[in-house]
Amino acid sequence: MSKDIIKPSILAGFMELIPSEQILFNKMMDTIRENYEKFGFLPIDTPVIEKAEVLLAKGGGETEQQIYRFEKGDADLALRFDLTVPLARYVAQHFSELTFPFRRYHIGKVYRGEKAQRGRFREFYQCDIDIIGNGSLDIINDAEIPSIIYSTFKDLGFDSFTIKVNNRKVLKGFFQWLGIEDSTEILRTVDKLEKIGLDGVVKELEEQGLGTTTIEKILGFIQIKGSNEEKLNSLENLKIESQIFNEGLEELKAVNHYVGLFGVPEDNCSIDLTIARGLDYYTGTVYETFLNDYPQIGSICSGGRYDNLAEYYTKQKLPGVGISIGLTRLFYQLKEAKLINVEDNSLTKVIIIPMAGYLEKAVGIGKVLRENNINTQIYLEKAKMGKKFGFADKLNIPYALIIGEEEVKQSKYTLRNMGTGDQTMFSIDEILSRLNN
Amino acid sequence: MSKDIIKPSILAGFMELIPSEQILFNKMMDTIRENYEKFGFLPIDTPVIEKAEVLLAKGGGETEQQIYRFEKGDADLALRFDLTVPLARYVAQHFSELTFPFRRYHIGKVYRGEKAQRGRFREFYQCDIDIIGNGSLDIINDAEIPSIIYSTFKDLGFDSFTIKVNNRKVLKGFFQWLGIEDSTEILRTVDKLEKIGLDGVVKELEEQGLGTTTIEKILGFIQIKGSNEEKLNSLENLKIESQIFNEGLEELKAVNHYVGLFGVPEDNCSIDLTIARGLDYYTGTVYETFLNDYPQIGSICSGGRYDNLAEYYTKQKLPGVGISIGLTRLFYQLKEAKLINVEDNSLTKVIIIPMAGYLEKAVGIGKVLRENNINTQIYLEKAKMGKKFGFADKLNIPYALIIGEEEVKQSKYTLRNMGTGDQTMFSIDEILSRLNN
Repeated sequence: MSKDIIKPSILAGFMELIPSEQILFNKMMDTIRENYEKFGFLPIDTPVIEKAEVLLAKGGGETEQQIYRFEKGDADLALRFDLTVPLARYVAQHFSELTFPFRRYHIGKVYRGEKAQRGRFREFYQCDIDIIGNGSLDIINDAEIPSIIYSTFKDLGFDSFTIKVNNRKVLKGFFQWLGIEDSTEILRTVDKLEKIGLDGVVKELEEQGLGTTTIEKILGFIQIKGSNEEKLNSLENLKIESQIFNEGLEELKAVNHYVGLFGVPEDNCSIDLTIARGLDYYTGTVYETFLNDYPQIGSICSGGRYDNLAEYYTKQKLPGVGISIGLTRLFYQLKEAKLINVEDNSLTKVIIIPMAGYLEKAVGIGKVLRENNINTQIYLEKAKMGKKFGFADKLNIPYALIIGEEEVKQSKYTLRNMGTGDQTMFSIDEILSRLNN
Repeated sequence: MSKDIIKPSILAGFMELIPSEQILFNKMMDTIRENYEKFGFLPIDTPVIEKAEVLLAKGGGETEQQIYRFEKGDADLALRFDLTVPLARYVAQHFSELTFPFRRYHIGKVYRGEKAQRGRFREFYQCDIDIIGNGSLDIINDAEIPSIIYSTFKDLGFDSFTIKVNNRKVLKGFFQWLGIEDSTEILRTVDKLEKIGLDGVVKELEEQGLGTTTIEKILGFIQIKGSNEEKLNSLENLKIESQIFNEGLEELKAVNHYVGLFGVPEDNCSIDLTIARGLDYYTGTVYETFLNDYPQIGSICSGGRYDNLAEYYTKQKLPGVGISIGLTRLFYQLKEAKLINVEDNSLTKVIIIPMAGYLEKAVGIGKVLRENNINTQIYLEKAKMGKKFGFADKLNIPYALIIGEEEVKQSKYTLRNMGTGDQTMFSIDEILSRLNN
């Protein structure tokens, strides 16, 4: 058998983990899913491959360049590049089978053939929730979202994070009041405040041809400080006569009020008038979430309110609000920053190590442990004890259960704590209670 | 906004479920995963897109025609068509980072662009486990596999199923002894016994040019009957002088012996000499699993032993044994046969329905319920009570908790059993204990 060996490798821009990392990754995904379910979201799963004309209904620049698109037979196919377009298609297609407001979660891989670079992925998991109304959707839904973000990141083990909330109507109304119809460029500049500093912002705004008074007003606006309550008061005090501004302000007030009731501490959720979040999709509340000690990681959970989810697929008006956690990128960043332990993870609680001749007894005891919901591996190969212990060590399995002549005679089995090396003989019942804690 | 509406639809051959179905699908996937973890298997996740030359290293007919293959830039890409080729590539690539025997499970979507027809899918979930040895792998692993199949299908709610076990060496040795070197065609015919009956088999074997004596011997062999023990004795009594036959027989004996010790009742696991399972991949033990009352569904879990997993990617010899559950097809078949209830599934335990003016109280109580791990939705829209109950009904949420003036006054809240319509006022503690059972 002299075959050509092909070098085993994967494409650049794809993340692949070894099992101890994968265990942690899956645990994070489970935590996210449990939180989504705790708030009444229902699961959906859509095809990774869809008709290109459906996925590209909206069309437009970057998406179209990055999408994986190909033909099979005479079908023009593409891989989904987010979970929002498939949601829009799903809701329009299954409209009559769904109950509104429709709360769905979707955890799945999406594909973007962008330029490979460190920390950018071409295949990555998104973990999305959205609440879709039929015709209308109460603003209180926008206030529940931060409580889901809060609960999820607390359960993921984070304490020091801030959910930043803003409202696009407040921004839009404010700029209209300044006589600026298209604030796209300005918002893009303001978004860079953390990165380029106040001077940088001023310089860019000047380059965009804004006058000194206008720039001063913009700076005054984005620098509004204080508690959420104080920020809302300051906005009120601007006395801006714009319907859309005041609509946004009322929404922001309602969100702020209910976010507190939903149990999110003000430390973890603050109004930030510089958050704009994309430029053509969101129409009301917007969210971004930052780790306080690692702002360079960027937003770890973002989203917002939109007026109409599925206008390309249906005439039904479907307003919604949602967020997305980019888990692949988050995991990568946390690993890079050494904020997660990717090494000593084990799903297996105990490995049974039979001495020569005691395999049959081991199999029987393994059965009992599993019936008691203890993840149990039996070491089935013939090997020296040292090798067997080494195996357990390498896989970070916390306990080994040794079964040999003495054990079977006494009906007590040697339980070894692989971390400390301590070992004691216990009855099956004692072993069950020790491993089941 | 008068946009062109694109008809929302997906491609033929792709399964998409509504949420009540998806809940059940996910529950089945969780059950499979829990069982795999209970036996010490570690999770991996590989890219859906790989280099075409890697996925097609083995090459060959059907695979190459069915594969989704396309170019992006100057890269020749393909979507994985099973989880075994990616496993081979993974083990070869990460060889030095893995601990052997390497037990991995992998649950993920695979893609085959085959002709769309009822019950055939172009995107489907496979749920695989494999145990890979470095150089060698004890036969007892082959006996553990049926115990994992047994445990998994019991937990999925099945009682009446049979894991059929055979050994390719027994078949190969038997046919060599008959002077037949290439038994491919014969095995394909024998595989059809259930479908075309004994007469059909005889006819096909005659057409293949076999003589009467040979056909009689083949019929005698495939009709060996009795308990597993009796079948093994009958095989022994054939007194076949073939090393490979006797090797296979010894393996089959060992598997049969240990399968019993692993706790699989003989009713659920029987030796079946007609099972051949594919034609060039497996080299020893092979498995197929059938629902006794629905044989037409075909095998719901299959697999076997192979000599060398990754010969196209490494010179390491990596024998292994594994199985696969095709969950998408299984779910489809069970739904078609009305063997699963795809309608009344809910992940949400209770929906809180606030009367007008009592939303704030509802939000507070929702928080308490979720802190006690009860999946809780709050009905946040303004609507009439009838509509709110209707919402809970449609989503099959088992309980509604009504919060209004009387409830707040008494600090007792009305818990309604949505199934029976019974409702009683309870304190929060009573509600927690009722919902937490």
